[in-house]
Amino acid sequence: MRTSHAAHPDRLLPADPATRDIARRLLAHVEDLPIISPHGHIDASMFVRDEAFADPTALLISPDHYLTRILHSAGIDLSELRVGGHEATTPREAFRIFVEHWGLYAGTATGYWVEQEFEHVFGINPDRLNSGTPDAADAIYDELVEILAKPDFRPRALPEQFNLEVLATSDDPLDDLAAHKQLADDPTFSPRALPTFRPDAYTKTYNPGWAEKTIKLIDAAGGGKQGFVGYLEAMRNRRQYFIEHGATSADHGLHDTDSTPLSHADAQTILDKGLAGTASLAEMRAFEANMTYRFSEMSQDDGLVMTIHPGVYRNHSTSAQQRFGADIGADIPFRVEYTKGSQALLSSFGENKDFHFVMFTIDETVFSREIAPLAGYYPAAYVGAPWWFIEEIDAMNGFRAATTGTTGFSRYSGFIDDTRAYCSIPARHNTSRRVEANYLARLVTEHRISENRAAEIIVDLIDASPRRVFKL
Amino acid sequence: MRTSHAAHPDRLLPADPATRDIARRLLAHVEDLPIISPHGHIDASMFVRDEAFADPTALLISPDHYLTRILHSAGIDLSELRVGGHEATTPREAFRIFVEHWGLYAGTATGYWVEQEFEHVFGINPDRLNSGTPDAADAIYDELVEILAKPDFRPRALPEQFNLEVLATSDDPLDDLAAHKQLADDPTFSPRALPTFRPDAYTKTYNPGWAEKTIKLIDAAGGGKQGFVGYLEAMRNRRQYFIEHGATSADHGLHDTDSTPLSHADAQTILDKGLAGTASLAEMRAFEANMTYRFSEMSQDDGLVMTIHPGVYRNHSTSAQQRFGADIGADIPFRVEYTKGSQALLSSFGENKDFHFVMFTIDETVFSREIAPLAGYYPAAYVGAPWWFIEEIDAMNGFRAATTGTTGFSRYSGFIDDTRAYCSIPARHNTSRRVEANYLARLVTEHRISENRAAEIIVDLIDASPRRVFKL
Amino acid sequence: MRTSHAAHPDRLLPADPATRDIARRLLAHVEDLPIISPHGHIDASMFVRDEAFADPTALLISPDHYLTRILHSAGIDLSELRVGGHEATTPREAFRIFVEHWGLYAGTATGYWVEQEFEHVFGINPDRLNSGTPDAADAIYDELVEILAKPDFRPRALPEQFNLEVLATSDDPLDDLAAHKQLADDPTFSPRALPTFRPDAYTKTYNPGWAEKTIKLIDAAGGGKQGFVGYLEAMRNRRQYFIEHGATSADHGLHDTDSTPLSHADAQTILDKGLAGTASLAEMRAFEANMTYRFSEMSQDDGLVMTIHPGVYRNHSTSAQQRFGADIGADIPFRVEYTKGSQALLSSFGENKDFHFVMFTIDETVFSREIAPLAGYYPAAYVGAPWWFIEEIDAMNGFRAATTGTTGFSRYSGFIDDTRAYCSIPARHNTSRRVEANYLARLVTEHRISENRAAEIIVDLIDASPRRVFKL
Repeated sequence: MRTSHAAHPDRLLPADPATRDIARRLLAHVEDLPIISPHGHIDASMFVRDEAFADPTALLISPDHYLTRILHSAGIDLSELRVGGHEATTPREAFRIFVEHWGLYAGTATGYWVEQEFEHVFGINPDRLNSGTPDAADAIYDELVEILAKPDFRPRALPEQFNLEVLATSDDPLDDLAAHKQLADDPTFSPRALPTFRPDAYTKTYNPGWAEKTIKLIDAAGGGKQGFVGYLEAMRNRRQYFIEHGATSADHGLHDTDSTPLSHADAQTILDKGLAGTASLAEMRAFEANMTYRFSEMSQDDGLVMTIHPGVYRNHSTSAQQRFGADIGADIPFRVEYTKGSQALLSSFGENKDFHFVMFTIDETVFSREIAPLAGYYPAAYVGAPWWFIEEIDAMNGFRAATTGTTGFSRYSGFIDDTRAYCSIPARHNTSRRVEANYLARLVTEHRISENRAAEIIVDLIDASPRRVFKL
Repeated sequence: MRTSHAAHPDRLLPADPATRDIARRLLAHVEDLPIISPHGHIDASMFVRDEAFADPTALLISPDHYLTRILHSAGIDLSELRVGGHEATTPREAFRIFVEHWGLYAGTATGYWVEQEFEHVFGINPDRLNSGTPDAADAIYDELVEILAKPDFRPRALPEQFNLEVLATSDDPLDDLAAHKQLADDPTFSPRALPTFRPDAYTKTYNPGWAEKTIKLIDAAGGGKQGFVGYLEAMRNRRQYFIEHGATSADHGLHDTDSTPLSHADAQTILDKGLAGTASLAEMRAFEANMTYRFSEMSQDDGLVMTIHPGVYRNHSTSAQQRFGADIGADIPFRVEYTKGSQALLSSFGENKDFHFVMFTIDETVFSREIAPLAGYYPAAYVGAPWWFIEEIDAMNGFRAATTGTTGFSRYSGFIDDTRAYCSIPARHNTSRRVEANYLARLVTEHRISENRAAEIIVDLIDASPRRVFKL
Repeated sequence: MRTSHAAHPDRLLPADPATRDIARRLLAHVEDLPIISPHGHIDASMFVRDEAFADPTALLISPDHYLTRILHSAGIDLSELRVGGHEATTPREAFRIFVEHWGLYAGTATGYWVEQEFEHVFGINPDRLNSGTPDAADAIYDELVEILAKPDFRPRALPEQFNLEVLATSDDPLDDLAAHKQLADDPTFSPRALPTFRPDAYTKTYNPGWAEKTIKLIDAAGGGKQGFVGYLEAMRNRRQYFIEHGATSADHGLHDTDSTPLSHADAQTILDKGLAGTASLAEMRAFEANMTYRFSEMSQDDGLVMTIHPGVYRNHSTSAQQRFGADIGADIPFRVEYTKGSQALLSSFGENKDFHFVMFTIDETVFSREIAPLAGYYPAAYVGAPWWFIEEIDAMNGFRAATTGTTGFSRYSGFIDDTRAYCSIPARHNTSRRVEANYLARLVTEHRISENRAAEIIVDLIDASPRRVFKL
């Protein structure tokens, strides 16, 4: 018998009883549809190896920086959570720390997906986490160990349980995509696993290691050409390689939206300075902006969907970066703007309806003011789903209210989970379906749309939007 | 028999039954009050000519860039919608395209006012648009042709159906206002039609055509004076001319809120450079800022209400501007700030309670942070209604929540429709009345104000506020 | 018999009946808990003198700039409200003006706390203010005069009625804190009255009077050291003095969040220029930023909690400042950013969990985008309660929705009243308790947390959070 509130069929649905009834009916249209995940950070080689997950901590805690950052904010050293290869604890001890602090997650997006994972993926009542004791932790840990040893919980077995149809990864331009090829060639592997071209490491001249990487890129893929011409050629060649391996999109974690093009001569000058270590910060930003323009130019030819997510201060804590590396929860959003920055790009390419340009943001203020108006005019421009720090239930509701009045539902990218936490995928997509049902039910109650129309819309949002926008 | 959800008397009212009852009673106090429209873009000469509308497409589609931009975002070329004088289709074909894509408008502010127009202005059930077929489009088109041929649907006849008491237009300073004069002199014409002084074309030194216009202005109205002195004199003279023709306000579509005054000598220098084509962008912005200050100075003398709406990137798509001109839906908001920019102006004139300075914005973030605090202190400062891309039902609700706690209801401009779509006026004002009822009903349910007080407030907001603030 | 809506036990609770029931039960857990007020502007010497309040206007109107600014926006000259020592009216006349304009406060945060004061502190039905007549004003005024003459309404008697356990003041670094000492030594005085170190006047090189104050500070407390070394030493010494007198926190009204450190040599250079009146604005801002860093460095040693509230344009109306001085309601928020500005400080000290750094803001956009992510990572960083212009009921609800999904409840500072209006303290804290109950009840209804957990959380938020964060 389930007693967990996490198991309640009405979770996340609106309080008003009449609206809730409508939301329930709308949800029923989409709750069992397959999951399309066109952007995320799962490693494709995990499926090739198909090894049982090492332990519950390695699966659920250490790699999920949404989860570890909250424990860290409470004063837990990241080494005690086995982050970044540190082993100050055993996996069992780290799991105890997590259970001891489970109360911190109440009301958070992370807490919500963790309890849904326990409830629906592992069949463990998440209320058992509430006691917080080492004994409770150990008992759950032991059950998880047992579960993870089962063949049903191998990486390749889970997609069927998850009803996962498409899963995109994020990959370095020089990745040989061998894992993707093996999976594509394997008729027994079910979800479509697509690589995504993610060239940030080669455009951020200001990052450590950029020069070595860039030289290697030009050498390996520049077709014998040198300098900026070889650099562009290498990007084009690798995009083509990705397309041949199933890629439909390229993803760009930009500093900002600036897309001002440079002449090739000016770009060459900055490239030279960058390699010599003498470029100014302004020049390096101009180089990145030019590449944003050049990548959109490439998409006109090769058809890759272009997604951008600007406005993040990466590795905000210098000391933590030195100890633990990147992706530990210390990437902090800052204010962005889209209207001026993307003007060069959209004015050149935005009228092309075969070009798909998806605008993500971690700054909620941009949705209504800039992204919705841009997507409500340009055929190329799409409103990216709220994700990352704004992938939160109230924020997702706010996202709909911020964008729908201006653009309607047709300019939406479909939901993005962006996850590194494999087992959280079903919970996160289910959350987005509930939020859509919630919002649409309110429109019906307020006589803004009919329930029949709402039913068509929710199916389109969940199923057709991501296929259409990501050219799946 | 009506079956359209658009006809439901409870549309846009809150879901909670007890709150909805209160909202219904509040709405009843204002639903039949006359419409005061103190800012918009209807052409006064339309009433003088009083010709039957050419066809349904020319009335409802081609001139309404809120409507055409959504079709454009779906990949329809604007020429197929007969925008900007293009005739790639017949009116009937353009109407078919609109009906075929009617589904795109679900949940949008535009869709809402279109369906209200069909329902309440034309008596056509908007659910008939849902089929999307050419046959359905043709049948509706033919009915509209028949309706538009009736004397009741001539431009001069509609204000009575609309219950339209005041209608302000937006006019070039050199407009002779002959149409306004004819209407004012005609006892058979019922709404008060007021010109609005809109001098943007003469202050934006950086716009094409500025120099010719400015030379003409000084020649025509500078009273024989030359240079910046003649320029200011011409502005003063034309404002006076507008006042004599019924104007009560001047409207300014500013780049930003900067109001830093220049000495007349410095302004003369930039004016000269501007005419010679040698002014820098910074100088041209400084010239515009100075004029913002100078116009507020003029208002101290002549009493014109000053409305500003900064923060729009006009004609974002260069190629579309070349093909179709301005006002095609490609004006995109950007971030604004009011506190620092308006300091010079408000510190000089804001303590004068006879000066009315109305602050509009398309940036929702400014409401609570800057506009409400400014209007909650300065007797001259008023909170402008949310309009344009934020004239959307949820955004209008959010506007109340963002400003009321700081300023109450007394500093509000009254609703603005800003419309180019004549037949949408009743629907838009009705929407604003429903949103006010919605918000106030919640305050009553939460025991924040009494229902009696809420009833007084809603009548004040709808009827007295615009009269008071716009000096009608 | 009470008929005032202000007396309704369900005020501010959610409309949906099932959710309201939950909110009532949650509120019951905290409604009678003592008030912890760790930041405000009550003068400690008021308790030492313990004189009856002079008159109702001097207690309730003239010093409360939230209240006077709204009357001012309606065109009332501040001198008629006896602001800044002006006496253009008698207290009775000023009170009449207030009552005449009582309608302006409907829906405002100020109106809400005023009516709660009348209802619950003075036992006067606030609906009597509605008539607005001089007679009604006089009758209420006379009753208040009678009430204020009673021993129960002396400054020292009220804390018991208010259930006030901790009250922090804001004090100049050179204050001798004699009043605090007297209160601490007096066993008959009940609330704990703590000084707060507020050094703004000594760091804002650009403010009039800065040089004299700074010279005096170095002379008085620099331990014989000169220049920047003496300046730092004086700050350290005075902080120590404050700690010895009960202070647990230092408060900083910063221009912005910039915390970039300078070398002591560079700081010395700017200090010299500042004293000579030759520092540029950029240099003076750099000096302030350096001091933000240096104060956080001092907190590492002495343990004072550091609270900051950047982003306010002080004394926006120059003419009003000349007539009435500071703190008259003309301080206007502007846009802030936290991510880049606080990076130097947090990267150096943010990993120290014994350092408490509380981030306040008057800019709602920063909550979800920057403050919550920072507090959701750094052990030192706390989300400051919304206060000042965003201490408004809907904004407080929005605050929870903006931050909880990212950080949960554990990173919250506890509620801050920041008040100069002594008798508003109970109403404001009661409001915050109702808002918390409102938000938590919704999470329960939506099956996001259990009611048991919500009950634990609300007690923690109201009672334990401020004690923990402010080291009480």
